[in-house]
Amino acid sequence: MAENPLHLIMNPQSIAFVGASNNPMKMGTMQALSIVKDGYQGKFYPIHLKEKTVLGCKAYAAARDLPEAPDLVIIAIPTKNVIPLLEEFGSIGTRRAIIITAGFKETGESGRDMEKKLIATVNRHNMRFVGPNCVGIINSQINLNTTVLGMDKLPGRLGLASQSGTYVTQTLHYLKKKGIRLSKAISLGNEANIDIVTAMEYLAEDDDTKAIILYIEGIRDGRRFVDAARRITPFKPVLAQYVGGSAAGARAGLSHTGAMAGPDFLYDGIFRQSGIIRVGSVEELYAQGWALATQPPLGGRRVGVLTNSGGPATAISYACDSAGMDVPRFSPQLQEEIKKHIQPHAAAGNPVDMTFDLDMPLLAITIPEIIMKSGEVDALVLHGAMGRGFMKEAYDHAHELVGDVPFAEFFKMFDRDLSGAYLLPQKYNMPLIVSSFFDREDNYTQAYQDNNVPVFDSPERAARALISLYQYALVKKRKTAVSPALPPVNETAANIISEALARNQKALDEYAAKKLLAAYGIPVVQETLTATPQEALAAAKELGFPVALKACSWEIMHKSGKGLIALNVENEEKLKIEFKKIQQAAGKAVPLLVQQMISGSREFLAGMTRFAGFGPCVVFGLGGIFTEALHDTTIRLAPLALEEAREMIADIRAQKLLSEFRGMPKVNTDTLALILQAVGFIALLHPEIAEIDLNPIIIEGAKPVVADALIVLST
Amino acid sequence: MAENPLHLIMNPQSIAFVGASNNPMKMGTMQALSIVKDGYQGKFYPIHLKEKTVLGCKAYAAARDLPEAPDLVIIAIPTKNVIPLLEEFGSIGTRRAIIITAGFKETGESGRDMEKKLIATVNRHNMRFVGPNCVGIINSQINLNTTVLGMDKLPGRLGLASQSGTYVTQTLHYLKKKGIRLSKAISLGNEANIDIVTAMEYLAEDDDTKAIILYIEGIRDGRRFVDAARRITPFKPVLAQYVGGSAAGARAGLSHTGAMAGPDFLYDGIFRQSGIIRVGSVEELYAQGWALATQPPLGGRRVGVLTNSGGPATAISYACDSAGMDVPRFSPQLQEEIKKHIQPHAAAGNPVDMTFDLDMPLLAITIPEIIMKSGEVDALVLHGAMGRGFMKEAYDHAHELVGDVPFAEFFKMFDRDLSGAYLLPQKYNMPLIVSSFFDREDNYTQAYQDNNVPVFDSPERAARALISLYQYALVKKRKTAVSPALPPVNETAANIISEALARNQKALDEYAAKKLLAAYGIPVVQETLTATPQEALAAAKELGFPVALKACSWEIMHKSGKGLIALNVENEEKLKIEFKKIQQAAGKAVPLLVQQMISGSREFLAGMTRFAGFGPCVVFGLGGIFTEALHDTTIRLAPLALEEAREMIADIRAQKLLSEFRGMPKVNTDTLALILQAVGFIALLHPEIAEIDLNPIIIEGAKPVVADALIVLST
Repeated sequence: MAENPLHLIMNPQSIAFVGASNNPMKMGTMQALSIVKDGYQGKFYPIHLKEKTVLGCKAYAAARDLPEAPDLVIIAIPTKNVIPLLEEFGSIGTRRAIIITAGFKETGESGRDMEKKLIATVNRHNMRFVGPNCVGIINSQINLNTTVLGMDKLPGRLGLASQSGTYVTQTLHYLKKKGIRLSKAISLGNEANIDIVTAMEYLAEDDDTKAIILYIEGIRDGRRFVDAARRITPFKPVLAQYVGGSAAGARAGLSHTGAMAGPDFLYDGIFRQSGIIRVGSVEELYAQGWALATQPPLGGRRVGVLTNSGGPATAISYACDSAGMDVPRFSPQLQEEIKKHIQPHAAAGNPVDMTFDLDMPLLAITIPEIIMKSGEVDALVLHGAMGRGFMKEAYDHAHELVGDVPFAEFFKMFDRDLSGAYLLPQKYNMPLIVSSFFDREDNYTQAYQDNNVPVFDSPERAARALISLYQYALVKKRKTAVSPALPPVNETAANIISEALARNQKALDEYAAKKLLAAYGIPVVQETLTATPQEALAAAKELGFPVALKACSWEIMHKSGKGLIALNVENEEKLKIEFKKIQQAAGKAVPLLVQQMISGSREFLAGMTRFAGFGPCVVFGLGGIFTEALHDTTIRLAPLALEEAREMIADIRAQKLLSEFRGMPKVNTDTLALILQAVGFIALLHPEIAEIDLNPIIIEGAKPVVADALIVLST
Repeated sequence: MAENPLHLIMNPQSIAFVGASNNPMKMGTMQALSIVKDGYQGKFYPIHLKEKTVLGCKAYAAARDLPEAPDLVIIAIPTKNVIPLLEEFGSIGTRRAIIITAGFKETGESGRDMEKKLIATVNRHNMRFVGPNCVGIINSQINLNTTVLGMDKLPGRLGLASQSGTYVTQTLHYLKKKGIRLSKAISLGNEANIDIVTAMEYLAEDDDTKAIILYIEGIRDGRRFVDAARRITPFKPVLAQYVGGSAAGARAGLSHTGAMAGPDFLYDGIFRQSGIIRVGSVEELYAQGWALATQPPLGGRRVGVLTNSGGPATAISYACDSAGMDVPRFSPQLQEEIKKHIQPHAAAGNPVDMTFDLDMPLLAITIPEIIMKSGEVDALVLHGAMGRGFMKEAYDHAHELVGDVPFAEFFKMFDRDLSGAYLLPQKYNMPLIVSSFFDREDNYTQAYQDNNVPVFDSPERAARALISLYQYALVKKRKTAVSPALPPVNETAANIISEALARNQKALDEYAAKKLLAAYGIPVVQETLTATPQEALAAAKELGFPVALKACSWEIMHKSGKGLIALNVENEEKLKIEFKKIQQAAGKAVPLLVQQMISGSREFLAGMTRFAGFGPCVVFGLGGIFTEALHDTTIRLAPLALEEAREMIADIRAQKLLSEFRGMPKVNTDTLALILQAVGFIALLHPEIAEIDLNPIIIEGAKPVVADALIVLST
């Protein structure tokens, strides 16, 4: 496998920096300063026309003056100078760049042209680069930081790829305060060369990165993204925040990095298909990512909850329970063991509520250990361990009573080695999630955070982090989906399409559509196309009454509510009447489909639509009148492995309709999965098809049968 | 109106405290210290058997030694001593108490008995009290704090009533750090006397409280709660967090305050009925409550978004848009005005993204003011205003470059009067919500917080706070619901019930049930009860084929899927066959209902169930097979005003089914509302009815008709 182009960008032996001076009011200077100050050990070559030294390092006037071709050049100069500079570095042999400079595609037409020239230049020199319009990268393992602010000095475990530079710079201080440490971070900017997929792949290969977080405003190559993510998520958790699906959001995305925004629904489906856990805010992205990066994998769904107060105990239990986890009542033996340590009226049943108690080692070490080694839980959520923070409050409040000793001395009484608390997850190979209303000013919070136990500032957030661990455990359990081989093109189907195109049709008529579907093995309703009442009657007799009658013409794409359908036509007399009525409603002579009446009250839909950058996508959901009323639908990129089709079917909220239910048998979901897979195949085999709509697919007994179909052609 | 009993508890002229000493390791001492130290100006009488002074105040050996009957006694002594002590204070004339002491109902049988005796004692003395098993109260307007930790000295605006003491104590430090200030707080404990409804009513009357937040684990008197909240929410926002609806949560609730937990679904309905905004975590409770307590009311749904970076701009827009708010594109004029101030490629269209810019007055004052006075938005969300926090980071990073001046001196260059920023909401009577990755260490964050502009530590949280303002604006717009007068008891209905009870029936049969419903004006399907095929045929001919046949016996409560129903019976021959088949399926001779076939593909349900403490509750939702598959249902307490019934109908996700849709007319929701109201009336008029289930209510054309009904009797 070829080396990921980010490898050298993240681990250069030498860096040239263009755009730094000794003026601290310039962003470039601040960025170069990060490289110099945060402890990067490689060679650093500032390029400056006039200065002899920049930030204490010998400066060079131009690339050709350098003693070697640096592994990486970082560029933070005015837009118009970028291309000549890349030309220069390319010609001395530098093959990697970070282009901080903005003013390209994100600014409109002329910027877009400039970006194209930029790409042509680097391609000529076989270079790879991050940006333009980004803030750079962080590699905490080698203390390399190219952003404007200093970074946390402790090595991190969380890898970030972000389509917003803010989340690689403005938040560094915030992350320090939350005790969250990045292993690697990449601000992607316009992704003119290295994109989010390459960044994700790099983070997946990086051993120091234990979990990956992605801030996404738009994915360009959906298929590549899904293929890569599906490979990664079984062994490394990936979380993503996607914003940009709304009208206003999309506008912001456009003006920001020129990213293509797609609908929210599509991204939701892609994330599910990829095994990526989606979060709703940047703080969840960091915090839940940090929990996944630090905690041992969750081995089951049983949660122990331990607190010193009832509110948080209740809130944590409630949140876990609502998310499908279990807060099991402890065995009498375990309760007895816990009761030895807590006040008589305190609750030991799980949640364990010690009630207010200042014996912190009990809350943070003794009882957690009893619970973790009991074998009765798979994870522990702990609320209320606090030391210096609380003591400081109490001291400020009551220092006169304690003889006015200085706080430091007062606190010595309570200060202790906390390794017994923070080493528990390793010792029992079990996640520990902590909640505390005290931040890093408290020695418990600090000790936990500095030793890879995540601390959240509210009980519900702690619970939510555990829930992401649970979600990831489910992702790991997924069946591996092997991308299926496409079947051969079906001749009948190809002929139906080419004939329709030859007649300038924008769609197939229903009869032709079902013929095409049937050619790929999709079960469709029995039907006959008829032109006269006599033909219709003959067909109805052959099929057996009652039948359905439908106008059939490619020009009538949506028939319902227009008098173009008659259902449950019971006999000859009614057939004649309905035949006439439909002709009248159509306003002209149209052929009529005579269909077998399928009886079944469960209706689903399958469909296909194409998105730029993503190709054909398959949709599954509730059908019939509930399609628009409930939007209980899900989407995936084609082609679909059968496992993927089954996951789609399991996605819809109305799961119960698929099971044995009110005297109806369990739906044959194998057939349903084959239909979804076939829809994807058809889309890939016949690019002339723009959209497919099978709605309703009626469940007749247990068997799905396509009762109506629309196939729209590309024009 | 009688004075709320909390008024004197929150505003006592004199307080006796029993259970404090000079030992700082005792909770009682810490609580008394809060009263003495936080600035309470009334008289304070410690009661202590041995000490002469407690915390520097003259101590008294017993109540009878006091110079006066104190307005309030606070009790923090062992459980067994509480009742004698109350007896003592009752007899000297004290009429209010806060009972901190635990060990009552929450501990089981003997505690429950003790609590009953406690209640009897105080009733004899005509006393009112908060607790037991609570941490006390805070009234920041008179600097009265009875909790164990010191409180924020600035007066607050947010009123809290909490069924967990933690949220009135452990979080005080957290709140200080978040810049959130309470006006009043009440820890309710076991609610043996004063309950959450009385607390909510008190906070509603309190002028210093601008918004009310409730932490709820269980409501005892649902009807009183809803009635009170419905009166309050039109003029003061109320937010609630409810936990306890899950199995594990309920168990925690029980061991905590002995509160009765009800299902989540019920509380959701009650909050909607009351106009209470529900939140999912305690941090949202505080933070969104603080936004509502500080910001002017939202006048519309148009949001301006202003940032210095693209990620937050996109995230805020996305969140607002997803919640039904609008981030409108600014007019060309407004964009032009903004463009004068920002960099050429920055976005002015809304969201306004200035891109990274250190001209903070521009971001925090100039552009916000341009946007707020434009008339094009109803609120502004601002991200990125930062001063000292960012400068400190930059200084730490680059201080060598700035000549090593001390930070304080360096920062003077940037320090400025920020009143132009934080006074904007008042000036334009428009909400301003701020997001910043810097906390109170930053002078912008601090200035905003100290002057009643809420600051959130992530863009999405800021957006969510604005969304609660939007939710509250919708609550204020609600039609006032006047509790309807009950109709008289219908004789026919009463007879049906008493006859069924006389026959020891556990339910009415379907025929009787519909007769009862029809007696209260509910439209039911036309039907005849028949015993023989001949009678059935006569009935079918009268109604007209096709008809439905159903076994009719109170012992068959759920018919579907058992062969006890035949639909679309088209003719005499089929009727005879189906008649026999149903008899066979029933296994004995049962009367058969012959019903008119109602055709309509939209099905709803209405129902009634009773919850202890809440009385009869009316349910509305999707009917037919979707009832259990989709749980698209909502609930309210009976009786229902028609406005309330209409709100229920508007609650369901499948709204679209109610409108004109796929050739079907708009559903007659007036009739639907009348049905829901009647169901509530029936439950109140006939307490012998335990449950009602009208499912499906089929929409025939536009008209709802009850096609099946089950009425279960109390036994």
